[in-house]
Amino acid sequence: MRNLTEANLTDAVLARLSECDDPRLKQVMQSLIKHLHAFVREIEPTPQEWMAGIQFLTATGQKCDAVRQEYILLSDTLGVSMLMDAINNRKPAGATESSVLGPFYVEGAPEHDNGADLAPGEGPGVTVSGTVRGTDGKPLANAVLDVWQTAPNGLYHMQDQQAEEFHLCGKVHSAADGSYSLRTLKPVSYAVPIDGPVGSLLTKLGRHPYRPAHIHFIVSAPGYKPVVTQVYTEGDDYLESDAVFGVKNSLVVDYQRDGDEWKVSYDFVLEPAA
Amino acid sequence: MRNLTEANLTDAVLARLSECDDPRLKQVMQSLIKHLHAFVREIEPTPQEWMAGIQFLTATGQKCDAVRQEYILLSDTLGVSMLMDAINNRKPAGATESSVLGPFYVEGAPEHDNGADLAPGEGPGVTVSGTVRGTDGKPLANAVLDVWQTAPNGLYHMQDQQAEEFHLCGKVHSAADGSYSLRTLKPVSYAVPIDGPVGSLLTKLGRHPYRPAHIHFIVSAPGYKPVVTQVYTEGDDYLESDAVFGVKNSLVVDYQRDGDEWKVSYDFVLEPAA
Repeated sequence: MRNLTEANLTDAVLARLSECDDPRLKQVMQSLIKHLHAFVREIEPTPQEWMAGIQFLTATGQKCDAVRQEYILLSDTLGVSMLMDAINNRKPAGATESSVLGPFYVEGAPEHDNGADLAPGEGPGVTVSGTVRGTDGKPLANAVLDVWQTAPNGLYHMQDQQAEEFHLCGKVHSAADGSYSLRTLKPVSYAVPIDGPVGSLLTKLGRHPYRPAHIHFIVSAPGYKPVVTQVYTEGDDYLESDAVFGVKNSLVVDYQRDGDEWKVSYDFVLEPAA
Repeated sequence: MRNLTEANLTDAVLARLSECDDPRLKQVMQSLIKHLHAFVREIEPTPQEWMAGIQFLTATGQKCDAVRQEYILLSDTLGVSMLMDAINNRKPAGATESSVLGPFYVEGAPEHDNGADLAPGEGPGVTVSGTVRGTDGKPLANAVLDVWQTAPNGLYHMQDQQAEEFHLCGKVHSAADGSYSLRTLKPVSYAVPIDGPVGSLLTKLGRHPYRPAHIHFIVSAPGYKPVVTQVYTEGDDYLESDAVFGVKNSLVVDYQRDGDEWKVSYDFVLEPAA
């Protein structure tokens, strides 16, 4: 190929993959090149627009550090993360639906028995309780509910220099009958980080950066597929317009008054491992 | 939208653009989201593959600095830069064809009269000569040929701490009859930078990183559209497999022996400005 034109260029780039000996990588790159070139052909960017794109991608990478992942935020806000989640978690009817992991999960939260209080001395709290069972109806003893969420100030523990490590996080184990109960604080809706390139893009697109209030869970039990999900708050202002497209009706729960506190009931249902 | 599924997610993300008051940005993002989601739906990445993608994009941004633009290199090696170039430079028959600017152009090279020697005291050199004219046949006096290229060691001046600023660069002005002549060094084929994420990707794809030898030109004259192009060397090993897909037959020239030196003849033809 020594005469590359607008007409033959995409085929020439695809042909250059012929020596790739990793079939999956080859497949991914064929698809990427095809769709990327189709995008460029459709919008016909000017050199200035192309350079703006180069600068956006560069700045997004350079905004990332040990506690900030701006490319995950971009994936989340363009709906790619939830699309990935949907593709990788096609659940049978009756199983708890999944939602995005998000960038704020940290492995290693402290282990707790059933009934744990993740916010001792803080309140008003919410007691979340229910059962963990299989789609086969079997109650799952000693299932692990790995929980994380924002504090009332809208920050996750690693975003807040005042917060203790793993504040409002914990791995709570279900009881012998599959029941679980834990006490935490009622989550709040909050803005995704907006001081970077993705926040600037959202502003230019006329989009708000808010997520509806939610508690994150990874629920797992031996012999069953773990589910990564979020439990949302009925009545939240942002249920209809989550900045990261994470909401599913089956994950929205009522917070009910319980004296000075709140209570929520939610059952988790896992599908058997293949 | 509070029940987002694999089926309705792309439409939900597109609908979120409804408040964007920049029509061009809205058009670009609609196209981007459509093609990006189509790519994800086609390849169905695993979470591990998605994370590998996030890490690649992050590392590519973080490799960029004042003298290194890894995202332009990615655009170049995926054929996007040449596609952009083709779209933005649909030339009439007879006009000199364009090629990519590349990441090594620096504005501000020294001005020279016709006949300049860009490599005084170095050799063997090559004398490049010809005419600059319009597609209307008119010879273009005082056209500017802004030239840059690698040294025989394969490095551009800013890549080489031993090199003087603007080594082998210059803005040479054509004579009253539109003729031009300049002396430089015969360019060599060279590898694009391979010590970053893009180099690693090329290796995994079984692709070599070499570009065929070339001299860069931006040729401009009042009343005519400037052309950004490259003049390649007939017989180069990489004319058929340029790592950045820049070669066009009309830009390949014969280097002819001229005593201890070389000579090349090439005419530049500009289209009138609109």
